[in-house]
Amino acid sequence: MRRIIWVLVVVSAVAGAIALVAPGTGHADQEIYVTAIPRGYRDWRLVSVAHEEGELQDIRAILGNDVAIKAYREKKLPFPEGSIIARIAWKHVPSEENNKVFGRAQSFVPGAEPEWYLQFMVKNSKKYAATGGWGYAQFDKDGKPGPEKDMKACFPCHEAIRARDFVFTKYTP
Amino acid sequence: MRRIIWVLVVVSAVAGAIALVAPGTGHADQEIYVTAIPRGYRDWRLVSVAHEEGELQDIRAILGNDVAIKAYREKKLPFPEGSIIARIAWKHVPSEENNKVFGRAQSFVPGAEPEWYLQFMVKNSKKYAATGGWGYAQFDKDGKPGPEKDMKACFPCHEAIRARDFVFTKYTP
Repeated sequence: MRRIIWVLVVVSAVAGAIALVAPGTGHADQEIYVTAIPRGYRDWRLVSVAHEEGELQDIRAILGNDVAIKAYREKKLPFPEGSIIARIAWKHVPSEENNKVFGRAQSFVPGAEPEWYLQFMVKNSKKYAATGGWGYAQFDKDGKPGPEKDMKACFPCHEAIRARDFVFTKYTP
Repeated sequence: MRRIIWVLVVVSAVAGAIALVAPGTGHADQEIYVTAIPRGYRDWRLVSVAHEEGELQDIRAILGNDVAIKAYREKKLPFPEGSIIARIAWKHVPSEENNKVFGRAQSFVPGAEPEWYLQFMVKNSKKYAATGGWGYAQFDKDGKPGPEKDMKACFPCHEAIRARDFVFTKYTP
């Protein structure tokens, strides 16, 4: 009987662990590449939102994997190894539907994907030592990565924000 | 032996289910109230983002609990019982920091909390039969719920979007 109970405990723990680490919705973020889209990023939790005018004219969500969200919430800098921050952007377009209902032109919503729909910062201090420990990546709506020369253009701007480990976006509770 | 295997299967399934429903990060959304803030909402997944001008001048994130996200992704209407949609808003303010780095006034980020920082739609067809099966709620930054008369003002506008089960926000992939 004792042996059976022990087996039950182990099996339950394993089942629980599997469910936590890799639920069907794709929270797994063990795979870190900068030339491939980090798996499951669309299920990550929200860091913040932003709106860029000028040449960009987008509205964007910034998400973080579990490691990044934990560091953000604990105000822990530098971000730990394995942190990934995702930026999804959409064209900032008026919502005809909402404006009609409210009787006012005031509502802007996500439109089509811009040229660089997805961007990521991946923390790996050894691999990306030359760029502050972060690898940078961007992808179009078809998942095609941006050219390497564009990725080299990320760090010079992010250097201005060295005091926050090169991360512009602040966490908004 | 057969009986032991059967017990193992049941225990594993229960352990897995518990881990999925209530992980430590606070995904639990069993408690449904419209006068209390749904527990763990800040850990929910992103539905979309928006920007409201006019009187609101906010930038907002729309999140959904697991039931709502699943329905959105499967384009399932009406939303199932227990669906909760959360709307967090912040004042839409220029980012002096970003603009300085980029040398252009183009970046807008979340500022202070507006009067109604949080809003929720909670699906419970019986309880909220009078308002299309959804309960509406809003809270200020201190968690104080809005007056009931304000909640009664939600439905008349949402009625315009009856064809999408009274939900304005579309899921943006």
